[in-house]
Amino acid sequence: MEKEMKLTEAQQAEVEKQLDYLQRGVVEIVPEADFRKKIEKSVVTGKPLKIKLGMDPSAPDVHIGHTVPLHKLRQFQELGHEIQMLIGDFTGRIGDPTGKSETRKQLTDEEVKRNAETYVEQYGKVLDMDKVTIYYNSEWLKPLQFEDVVKLAANMTVARMLERDDFEKRYKSGQPISVHEFFYPLMQGYDSVALDTDIEVGGTDQKFNLLMGRTLQDAYGKEKQVAMTLPLIEGLDGERKMSKSLNNYIGIDEDPNEIFGKSMSIPDELMIKYYKLATDLPMEEIEKLEADLKEGRVHPRDAKMNLGARFVEMYHSKEAADEAKNYFQTVFQKRALPTDIPETKWEGDSAIWIVDLLVELKMLSSKGEARRMIQNGGVKINEEKVEDVQLQVDMKEDLILQVGKRKFMKVTK
Amino acid sequence: MEKEMKLTEAQQAEVEKQLDYLQRGVVEIVPEADFRKKIEKSVVTGKPLKIKLGMDPSAPDVHIGHTVPLHKLRQFQELGHEIQMLIGDFTGRIGDPTGKSETRKQLTDEEVKRNAETYVEQYGKVLDMDKVTIYYNSEWLKPLQFEDVVKLAANMTVARMLERDDFEKRYKSGQPISVHEFFYPLMQGYDSVALDTDIEVGGTDQKFNLLMGRTLQDAYGKEKQVAMTLPLIEGLDGERKMSKSLNNYIGIDEDPNEIFGKSMSIPDELMIKYYKLATDLPMEEIEKLEADLKEGRVHPRDAKMNLGARFVEMYHSKEAADEAKNYFQTVFQKRALPTDIPETKWEGDSAIWIVDLLVELKMLSSKGEARRMIQNGGVKINEEKVEDVQLQVDMKEDLILQVGKRKFMKVTK
Repeated sequence: MEKEMKLTEAQQAEVEKQLDYLQRGVVEIVPEADFRKKIEKSVVTGKPLKIKLGMDPSAPDVHIGHTVPLHKLRQFQELGHEIQMLIGDFTGRIGDPTGKSETRKQLTDEEVKRNAETYVEQYGKVLDMDKVTIYYNSEWLKPLQFEDVVKLAANMTVARMLERDDFEKRYKSGQPISVHEFFYPLMQGYDSVALDTDIEVGGTDQKFNLLMGRTLQDAYGKEKQVAMTLPLIEGLDGERKMSKSLNNYIGIDEDPNEIFGKSMSIPDELMIKYYKLATDLPMEEIEKLEADLKEGRVHPRDAKMNLGARFVEMYHSKEAADEAKNYFQTVFQKRALPTDIPETKWEGDSAIWIVDLLVELKMLSSKGEARRMIQNGGVKINEEKVEDVQLQVDMKEDLILQVGKRKFMKVTK
Repeated sequence: MEKEMKLTEAQQAEVEKQLDYLQRGVVEIVPEADFRKKIEKSVVTGKPLKIKLGMDPSAPDVHIGHTVPLHKLRQFQELGHEIQMLIGDFTGRIGDPTGKSETRKQLTDEEVKRNAETYVEQYGKVLDMDKVTIYYNSEWLKPLQFEDVVKLAANMTVARMLERDDFEKRYKSGQPISVHEFFYPLMQGYDSVALDTDIEVGGTDQKFNLLMGRTLQDAYGKEKQVAMTLPLIEGLDGERKMSKSLNNYIGIDEDPNEIFGKSMSIPDELMIKYYKLATDLPMEEIEKLEADLKEGRVHPRDAKMNLGARFVEMYHSKEAADEAKNYFQTVFQKRALPTDIPETKWEGDSAIWIVDLLVELKMLSSKGEARRMIQNGGVKINEEKVEDVQLQVDMKEDLILQVGKRKFMKVTK
């Protein structure tokens, strides 16, 4: 890294091409000078860079938000670099407190293992997994003894730890931070020491942890990695970071109709961001689309349907994408009932409380949920909204029940 | 501990006797109710209590201040209890930051071992070492793996750690606290888990660490220990805690004349405190002495000479005590030169710079030290103070050099 490199004109062009491609959509690269040097070195020597993405295996349901760094990794892959997929199976025993306001419960060995496998399977939908090396950090963290841990911890001060956003907030508001939570960034940093990582990718909320890798590599006499942060994508509410617990997410393992339907509820102003960060549509086409939308040459609804179809295609298939689009158009756009409503024969009482009925038919999973859904105006009988939570439903005639926008059931005598 | 114990009258009397004896000179017992219960249980079952004293082996020169808890342990010994002397050989790799304003350097294995041996030897001068069990905490701390350390650390919050006096001060003043320093109290606490300690003894500055043992024993399903804190003894300056680095200490390994001489410089108002905390003179006699001093029946100088003689006897012998007393009286009280001044024959130049002379004769170890000693008026030639640092000494006649109060040398032609 130290000595100045002489590049041929062709090499220089390759470096600029890679820098241009890899910097797209990135929030920050720290430090930029080292990033350029690493790319130069790789181009000159022909040796791929090692790009790390770490995963905390405590939330196995991958959603569109999780795929943002994956698309960046895919770009690195296209340029011939090596992807290190780090499953934090050891770290998962603690749980990353990032952005959480309370101490998380520790996962069992079995949960960690199951979650890790799920990740690998789901991430394969974006990345070429044949070119990805998977690592489990228990390999080098588990054998560490107390003495090693002490040495590791000696490289960081309490004050710097408490500068981390979430720690700072919790400390200032008097919420407990358990001492063992300080290990999370130390472990993540040590992973980079063990893996000789060149570049670590993560969301903007990971910046502190990514820089920890740099600090620790330096302390252990290794070449320092570069931290690359990517935007956090807002969820369907258009406000908060997409997350399972906020129920504002699109899971990549969800049914085609669900993915498509949820995509249609992405706020208009976020659509282009989703295109940029969560699809592999070339940047030029996205820019053209952006201009077309602005000039009114493309209707936002159509652009969003294409986005939904693209998601379904990525995580299911082209056929599933077409079907989901048709289904959506039938049910919502033409405001007609879908043609494939499941039927069930009613053999119960001739009248039943609406709440009991919904639970009985398994359209909703609890009475509480059924009650809330009715109160929120989300339940219809024969296309008419149910206004009264206490309603006794007359079961002597056939009827069509609807829950939310996309769940139907025909009940026959 | 839970159920109420029925004690006979004799047992009750024994309990009160022990409580009375053991509470003498103590600052705090936390919690007092548990202390009583433990004593009761021991009296009823005949099982001795386990009393722990931990030592950080980073300061091997034991001084009178260190002996305060030893005298308390000796009392426990007299009552038949079991002493656990814990050599923090593993902890010594970190160094206890208590009362220190900066991160301490880690000791090597060899340093830790040598220091630990020194401790054992020196402590034997106060305690009956045949009845003391010595433990090295590397035994149970060294084998701990990262996972165990994480579990250990999960029992304490960052906020509570930062409540510890010295951590709080350093954090607030922006001085760095290394994350690994948080391990010190955790290790000390875990020692009590490993040793099933009943009572841990320490200076008032150890209160946080002693209570950590209680917290961790509880977390690991053990009976909780009681914390017993003892006063910190002021050094010869009468103001700050006795410590080697402040040079206000009496080392128990120092020469008899040094111990005696230093004892004579203890401030009058602290004399009784030294008697109470650092000797084994019965409390009744100390109280009588205190009254005699107050009423003018005993001269403070005589009481102090007895104290000095007592220290020399404790750490050397009765004979050494008598000699030191005589020496002191000859040199200082009668203001005569001592009779046993060492002689050396001068074979150097006929004139020499005073600074060079003192270093040449090894009366002082460096020119800087010699210069300072002269500037402070601490050097005499033939009983006359040397006023001029640049003095050229005429070596053509015999002369008597004096450095400080107690170092003499006769230089002959």
